[in-house]
Parts: sequence; C-alpha cells; structure tokens
Amino acid sequence: MEKATIITIGDELLIGQVVDTNSAYMAQVLNSWGISVQSILTVHDDAEQIQSALQEAMAETDLVLLTGGLGPTKDDITKATLCRFFDTYLVENQEVKENVLRLYKDRPEVLNRLTETQWQVPQNCTIIQNKAGSAPIMLFRKDGKIVVSMPGVPHEMEYAMSAILPVLQNYGVAGEIQHKTLIVHGLPESALAIRIEHWEDALPPHLHLAYLPKNGFIRLRLSGYAEDKAALEAEMQKQISALSELVNDCLIATEDQPLEVLVGRKLLERNATVSTAESCTGGKVAVLLNKHAGSSAFYMGSVVAYDNRVKAVVLGVCEADLDRYGAVSEPVVRQMAQGARRLLHTDYAVATSGVAGPGGGTEEKPVGTVWIAVASDKGTKTKCLHLGKQREQNTDRTAQEVLLMLLEELDNR
Amino acid sequence: MEKATIITIGDELLIGQVVDTNSAYMAQVLNSWGISVQSILTVHDDAEQIQSALQEAMAETDLVLLTGGLGPTKDDITKATLCRFFDTYLVENQEVKENVLRLYKDRPEVLNRLTETQWQVPQNCTIIQNKAGSAPIMLFRKDGKIVVSMPGVPHEMEYAMSAILPVLQNYGVAGEIQHKTLIVHGLPESALAIRIEHWEDALPPHLHLAYLPKNGFIRLRLSGYAEDKAALEAEMQKQISALSELVNDCLIATEDQPLEVLVGRKLLERNATVSTAESCTGGKVAVLLNKHAGSSAFYMGSVVAYDNRVKAVVLGVCEADLDRYGAVSEPVVRQMAQGARRLLHTDYAVATSGVAGPGGGTEEKPVGTVWIAVASDKGTKTKCLHLGKQREQNTDRTAQEVLLMLLEELDNR
Repeated sequence: MEKATIITIGDELLIGQVVDTNSAYMAQVLNSWGISVQSILTVHDDAEQIQSALQEAMAETDLVLLTGGLGPTKDDITKATLCRFFDTYLVENQEVKENVLRLYKDRPEVLNRLTETQWQVPQNCTIIQNKAGSAPIMLFRKDGKIVVSMPGVPHEMEYAMSAILPVLQNYGVAGEIQHKTLIVHGLPESALAIRIEHWEDALPPHLHLAYLPKNGFIRLRLSGYAEDKAALEAEMQKQISALSELVNDCLIATEDQPLEVLVGRKLLERNATVSTAESCTGGKVAVLLNKHAGSSAFYMGSVVAYDNRVKAVVLGVCEADLDRYGAVSEPVVRQMAQGARRLLHTDYAVATSGVAGPGGGTEEKPVGTVWIAVASDKGTKTKCLHLGKQREQNTDRTAQEVLLMLLEELDNR
Repeated sequence: MEKATIITIGDELLIGQVVDTNSAYMAQVLNSWGISVQSILTVHDDAEQIQSALQEAMAETDLVLLTGGLGPTKDDITKATLCRFFDTYLVENQEVKENVLRLYKDRPEVLNRLTETQWQVPQNCTIIQNKAGSAPIMLFRKDGKIVVSMPGVPHEMEYAMSAILPVLQNYGVAGEIQHKTLIVHGLPESALAIRIEHWEDALPPHLHLAYLPKNGFIRLRLSGYAEDKAALEAEMQKQISALSELVNDCLIATEDQPLEVLVGRKLLERNATVSTAESCTGGKVAVLLNKHAGSSAFYMGSVVAYDNRVKAVVLGVCEADLDRYGAVSEPVVRQMAQGARRLLHTDYAVATSGVAGPGGGTEEKPVGTVWIAVASDKGTKTKCLHLGKQREQNTDRTAQEVLLMLLEELDNR
C-alpha cells in the first residue's frame, strides 16, 4: 500500500490557538483511497523547518501533502520555501488570476497588492484550480515522489482533497485498505479486551484491531490491508461477524456512524418525529439532532430549560415537584420530556437535567449526577447517570447517553 | 527560551478517526510556561516509529512530551518501547498499584489481568501519580534531556500537564513568552494586512504577528520572546496599543476570549438575562451561552424552533407572515426574538433563521441567506447575512454573528 506524510504549517497550531482538524480529515480521505498515513508533522511558518520536514517526508514516503501558509499575508512563506526546495521561481499564472478575479468580482474591495501574490506560482509545478478559494493547489514531482501544497482553510483543503484525486490516480494510487467498526457500550475497555483476546490473538498480521473509547462508548475498529479487494472484504466480513457475536450483548452498531445518524435513520424509517427538553446539556442534543442535512424531516424543535422558571412555565413541570425534589430528579426530568412531547407535538421527546459541574454539587447529588428521560406513546422511561467532574465531558456524555436511550426505545418497536 | 517537541501516538489519529485535540492543549500550556513548541509529530502505535521519533525529538529539543498508547489493551506498546529506548525493564510500582486499586474500589469488575499491567512501570523513570486515571505519568532523563510519557485520554492528559509543572520547574524552565491578541471584524484579511503593514514591518525581530481568521473574525496575535518579563510586557503593551489604534473601527476585543465570554461578562455587569430563539443554528447559540460555568446567572433558556409550527405555536410568530414572507425573513426573525424574550422573560433575546444548506435554496433566498435579530427593551434590530454553501460553516458563522450583534447592543447602553 502507498504511504503518505501530512505536513501542516502554522504557528497558530504550535501555540495551541487552533486545533489541527485538517490532518484528521486528510487522513480519512487518504485512507479511503487506499493510502495509509505514516505520520503527521506540524511545523512553524519557518523556511528551514518546512524544508527539513519536506526532505524527511520525501525520504520516508512517496506522497507528501502540505497544508497552510498560503494566505495573502506577511506570515505566509510556504510558496517561497517551495520555490527554493524545488529550485524554481514564481511566475504569474493566468488561470489562477482569472479564478481570483472571478471569486472577488462582487467584492472588489478585497483585490489589492497582497491578493495579487495569489496568482504568483512556482514555475515548475502543476496547478490545480481551487474553486473554493483564492490560493492555488500546487503539485510538484521530484525523484519519483509527489508533493502537494494546499490551503489550510478547512473548506478549501476539503475541496483540494477532492480535486487532487484524479491527478493522483494518474500516478497509480495502489493497494486496498478497509475498515470495519463495531460500537459497543457498557463494558470497561480492559474487560472487553479480555473477552475478545482469543479472537484478537488469532488475527492474521494484515488485520489489526484498535480500541477507540469516547463518551462512554468504545469503537472497535478492524483494519485490513491487502492487494485483492474482494478477498479482503470477505475476510473482514467473516472476522467482524465473529467479533459481533462475542460482544453481542453490548453491541450498539455495526458501522462507524455517530449515534444521531443512527437515531435519525430509525426515525425516518418509522416516519416519527422528535423534540428535546434540555437543562444540563443546554442544547447539545438539539445540535446533534439537526446537525446533518435532511434532519427537518424528523427533528421539530427543543426547549432549553436552563432556568427552573422555564421548566415550569414553558414545559409545564409542576412547581411543587421542582421545590420538593429539585431540578435534578426523576419526577422533573420525566415531566420535562412529557412537556416537550406535548408542546412540540412530537412522537418522541428526550430530556436531560443534571449537575454538570464544576460547582453546584451536594452530598446527595454530587457533580456528575444526571437524570435523562425518553417519552413516547408507550410512556416515559428515565435513568440516572453518575458521571465525572468535568463540565464539558459530562454534557457531551449525557447527550450521547440520551441518544442511546432513544435508539433503544426506537429498537423496541 | 526552552523548546519542546510533542509526540502523539495512535493509529486512530493517523486514520483520521480521532482529531488530535491534545496537542493544542499541551502547546497552550507549554507556551504559558515560557516553553515554545518546535514541532508536533503524530506516529503509529509502532515501536520503531516511536523510537525514531523520540531520537529525533531529543536531538532537536530539550523536552519531549509523549501522549497516548498507555491503555490496558493489546494495541498499546508505548511502555515496552520506552523500556527498550531507556535501556530498562518493567517493575511493579506500589504507589501506582494503590492508585489503581483506589480508583476502581467501587468498580471491582474493572480489575483484571490487563488492568494489572498499569502498575508495571519502567524501573529507571520518575513516577508522577495520575489522579485522573489509572495510567501513570512517567518522566525519564537522558543526556540532559527530559522525556515525559502521559496518557492520551484528554482529561487525564490535562491532569498530567498540571502535575508535571513543579517537576519541570525543578529543572529550570526558563525564558519568557507573551501573547496579546486583538479580535477584529469586518475587514478582509488582505485589506487588514495592507492597513497595518508599516506597523508590522517596523516590528523588532523578537516580536511576531500572526493572522488567525475564523468564522468571519480575524484574531491578530502578537507574540514576543525575551529574557526580561517586565520589559517585554511594556514593549508588547506599547505595540498592541499602536495596533489597536490602526484597527480601531473594526476592533471587537483586546483579549483572546470567545465572544460568548465577552457577552456573558457584559450581561453579568448589567445584571441582565438572555434567551435565544433558533431555527438554522439549531441550538448552537444556546450551547455557546451556557458552555462556561456560571452561565446560569444570565442565560435562562432557548426555544429551538426548527419546524414552522414551533415558530408559530411556541414563539407566537404570526402564521400569515410565515406564509407570506417565509421562515427566512425579517418579520419572522424579528417575531422570533420578541417571542423568546416574552416567553422566557429575559432582558435580551437573539434569534436566527436561515437557509443553512446544502439544499433548500431558491433564487430569491440562496443557500447562505440568514436573518438574525436582537430584541431588548429598546426594540428589535435585525440583519441579513449572505454566507456560503457549507452547512456547518454557515451555522457556526451565524452563531458568532448574532453574538456580535448582541455584544454591540450591550455596548450601546
């Protein structure tokens, strides 16, 4: 299988002001093309560092993808460095110029001396038009290796990844890589590892299992590398079936999809609608449910009832119960779910109410105590979670747990 | 100034299944200690790759931080590799054992043969207790260099970063690094660069400016490196004042805080409350407003009115206006903000309604057309945005724009 190195350029990454999400996206795309990523390296906007990163990457892999350092400002030096590295000079490129002029035709105020540097490109590279922005995508070949430099703005990089595929295919992207993922819930990582160890130990060397725990769920990802696509697919399928049986009692899904996608699909199948009533998650469940295009077919709306008054006035939670049991309680979360279902006229409604932290805990209800509920025409189910001390982790985890509860309720039909 | 390398270990990072957020966190913390990060390298769970990454990092910097590869499962080989690299062997560590046993005292089912590997540690390293999890933090010294291996689970890594500081201080973390950030809005990056270029060109070599554009805002970050803390602070202050004057008309903030923090602070100062009515943003503004601890003092709740029926029934938007002007219109977004303010009894309310995409656009209202509003006792202001074609980018951007609108309204008092 072909191997690649990703180099991301930018002081902002090394100072921690920006999280490098580009690399993960690029790695995913490369993997889907059968190219494995050998390493990811992040360096400063510094000519020497970029140059030595390039040198090393080209020594180790045949394909090198660079992002970042191409904007029209002073701190971007990638293009000059590439010229030096590939022993060339900048020339004006007519196509790039037209692209930039077209891009800014409605915003002439953006065009100026610095924007013009965008159509200066190294003389000996292949230019791939960037239809998502002004910085060109540049492909270099040297000693049988390929180096592609692309913009670091995420949606421009995403465009670039799609645009370079046909060019790379011309150079014979080879091999076959496949991944299959199971999502399991309810077993600690080490107990899971013991349960499946005989199966795992017997895996042939070209198959590899990874444990990816997140938000209380563990993704078991089986990866396979081979020349023969059909044979690999059959072998992977056999192995994943065997693994599924071993973890059957805690198996949530047999594909790597976020829970909200699985939930959305089930709701569509049943032609059913959902709403949410959220206290501690503060809208996170709503955001997940309407994250993907097409969600308006099943997601109707939400009430974020952060303040107790909103729980009472908007959702109709009984004020006496709020006083007697507190906002973080079974009766309140139950009434929140029922209230949302009634108010928003949906088939299902989920609710959350908890002590997210860091403050607000009591002896009886320490930080991490969370009640969740799912209401439907079959009645209302509730559950108490005992989570940790981290606010963001608690609310993310709660959102996942309530989606799981909804998924199970949908499966019970 | 001291320099460090960050090495993150994990197949899941190189396959793009998990975004590496640890590195950004670690880089931020290191920077705040006056240690600059030279590079970030991500490698596979592979002994050879880890070893050569370590070798190279130790050749280039005095401090190397490793994360990942320490869980109690088969695919974690970091500890074995560290033993080989530092020419040592595993021994049982009593303190780590007690920590693991304490951690799992309420969950004995987690304790098993694989958990026990957690208290096997390399004989010649310094152990720093991990109070956030079971994998120990291990510090090695060799040839005057320091290597720290820590867990990759984010909250354990965060704990580890706080726990290693006193140890690193013993070894004399030196130098001084400072950052000051301005947030500007409403100028294209290249126009901004031209406007401030004389100032930028005149910066001394130990000061550096970076442009960080995101969601329609540009953060201008000035970084300075020097030995003398007080002198550097005075110089940075002088420079940032000069820069502030140059960009005064588009200056949003003089510190690197998210908009929702600036908004929250202003609301607290004025003892005022806020609610949201969201259609296209689907709860994202709510999530931002209640993201930080203490937000219950000013944030009351939200109605996510995804479906038109919710806009009408819950928020009281006039059905005739919905029919006549459509959901994405000035009258509707205005009534949504007013409806939320009335229903949730808040001083301020913001609203969003737009065509987020990818589908749903018309000639009159193409994808990216978004109306936003802010209602208060002074009346309701509205604004139409013309954004791009990417769903997630559009909703993120809208959330920021409506927070900015609210911030400006708060400043107008």
